[in-house]
Amino acid sequence: MQRALHLAATPDVPHHPNPRVGCVLLDDDGRTVGEGHHRGAGTPHAEVAALADAGEAARGATAVVTLEPCNHTGRTGPCAQALIEAGVRRVVVAQRDPNPVAAGGVATLEAAGIEVEAGLRAAEARALNASWTFAHERGRPYVTWKFAATLDGRSAAADGTSRWVSSRPARLDTHRLRAACDTMLVGTNTVAVDDPRLTVRDEQDQPLATQPLRVVMGERDLPADSAILDDAAPSLHLRTRDPLVALQTLRRDHDRHHVFLEGGPTLAAAFLRAGLVDEVVTYVAPMLLGTGRNAVGDLGITTIADARHLYLRDATVLGSGAEANVRLTMTPEET
Amino acid sequence: MQRALHLAATPDVPHHPNPRVGCVLLDDDGRTVGEGHHRGAGTPHAEVAALADAGEAARGATAVVTLEPCNHTGRTGPCAQALIEAGVRRVVVAQRDPNPVAAGGVATLEAAGIEVEAGLRAAEARALNASWTFAHERGRPYVTWKFAATLDGRSAAADGTSRWVSSRPARLDTHRLRAACDTMLVGTNTVAVDDPRLTVRDEQDQPLATQPLRVVMGERDLPADSAILDDAAPSLHLRTRDPLVALQTLRRDHDRHHVFLEGGPTLAAAFLRAGLVDEVVTYVAPMLLGTGRNAVGDLGITTIADARHLYLRDATVLGSGAEANVRLTMTPEET
Repeated sequence: MQRALHLAATPDVPHHPNPRVGCVLLDDDGRTVGEGHHRGAGTPHAEVAALADAGEAARGATAVVTLEPCNHTGRTGPCAQALIEAGVRRVVVAQRDPNPVAAGGVATLEAAGIEVEAGLRAAEARALNASWTFAHERGRPYVTWKFAATLDGRSAAADGTSRWVSSRPARLDTHRLRAACDTMLVGTNTVAVDDPRLTVRDEQDQPLATQPLRVVMGERDLPADSAILDDAAPSLHLRTRDPLVALQTLRRDHDRHHVFLEGGPTLAAAFLRAGLVDEVVTYVAPMLLGTGRNAVGDLGITTIADARHLYLRDATVLGSGAEANVRLTMTPEET
Repeated sequence: MQRALHLAATPDVPHHPNPRVGCVLLDDDGRTVGEGHHRGAGTPHAEVAALADAGEAARGATAVVTLEPCNHTGRTGPCAQALIEAGVRRVVVAQRDPNPVAAGGVATLEAAGIEVEAGLRAAEARALNASWTFAHERGRPYVTWKFAATLDGRSAAADGTSRWVSSRPARLDTHRLRAACDTMLVGTNTVAVDDPRLTVRDEQDQPLATQPLRVVMGERDLPADSAILDDAAPSLHLRTRDPLVALQTLRRDHDRHHVFLEGGPTLAAAFLRAGLVDEVVTYVAPMLLGTGRNAVGDLGITTIADARHLYLRDATVLGSGAEANVRLTMTPEET
């Protein structure tokens, strides 16, 4: 399983939309006769790749796979069936498939008389595809809310200017985090005021080849010349103000697993009030403004006992000298 | 000089009001014949202690001392005269005395025919008594402004409650920083609203033996039952709203070198606007309030280009789990 987990985590395999999976085929003496991993949507699943690698040696082998073999036909056929047809004798699975459409592989294998063991190193396998697992289990994408603020909690000066509250190293770091998500989300007001591109760009400000879906939520129309409507990446306007409706739509209709929320204080407050923020990333800039736009809007909290507490996961200084910013990563839950 | 600096830095010697000084007496072969360090106001100066240690061996010796020997009679006699009378042949000095009242020791020694070398490892000697040196050179105490804030820059909730924005490890750390200063400073409004004790307390909330002077500035009278007027530590009411007047008074009339500013947003803003904050210590609590009291008042900044930038010196996580706070230490200048 160690090797299967390692294969699944092969660098440069996209995290979205499909889960990362690794598979190793072993003979009776525990020797590897084939291995494979999934390389992204539309390419063979890990089990099929491993079976192809093993050829005839797959007959009678044990398949060790990080995720329950799929039971449905998508762009590729069902892996459970492929394992049966190849004559595999035993299957060891780490994570059970949280996707109800694809699940059932273990039952299919067992019905075919194959011995199945599930749950070995399941936590590590879940962590490989954390937001994918979360989205399937919870019916909505995992939400990372990112904001940059001064020491006194301002995201822009009194006249609305905000370039730049965060330093260049912090902004580059933000693009790294954006790239790990499959969805950028802002409100119509941010589009109207800031007109952001919301693309993932490299150090030379050039867009990367793979871009998250750019989503604007809110009932107002978008200006036709909004940067978000350019052809640098796909975009979507969800005509709702309800965070849960937006998230469920993104999961159900657009197969989204990880939303990077970069909206203004009002949108952020709406998500916080709804309990729909799963991770908070704050870039603290060592500067003071005194007045200006607050980083977060009204949360309905009037007394200190009701403050929204977060658990600090990481504190990292990015950049140095005049460019030093502090990135704080937090979650609402302790575990 | 290494040894003299080490002696000066002997633990448990108070940093206030007198500078920490070390002195080593060497014979012609470089052997130590006596050494001494200052142990606090009213006790012998380092040179006198070293001369006493050496006895007759001081005659013809070289005195290595971290600070220019004093030239005035305070609670103890002038050290320059003591060195001359002991028959010292040569004096090596690190830092020149920035105190105009006590300075002139080098000139007095030279006038008596003693060879003097000054400036060796002066930077290290200055660092031994950084705020004392600052106060003498600038005519006002060094000012450390400390505040605790939520991620969104609030120092209290909408109803004024603020116990506790900072966690217990952060509050204990604040007492450690208070103990390194000689003056606590707040405004009359903080006394009226929060009624703080402003004492330095240990982990059992018991006051330490040595307390900074508690100072309130502002024109309003203090409530007679204010905690700050109790007998746990001396206190002082400066009837001015002008930060520079307050600081100059503290230096001139009360021999203060290091002010720990813990006032509210208005007082902090007044010091910032006057350019009279030399160090900022912020305890960032990973919590959100949405609304509430701002950590800092209006600074007259309306656009991002005019933001007050600080240089990050240190970022440290204090405590863990639900008690994790992040301490950021910053200065307005890069050097």
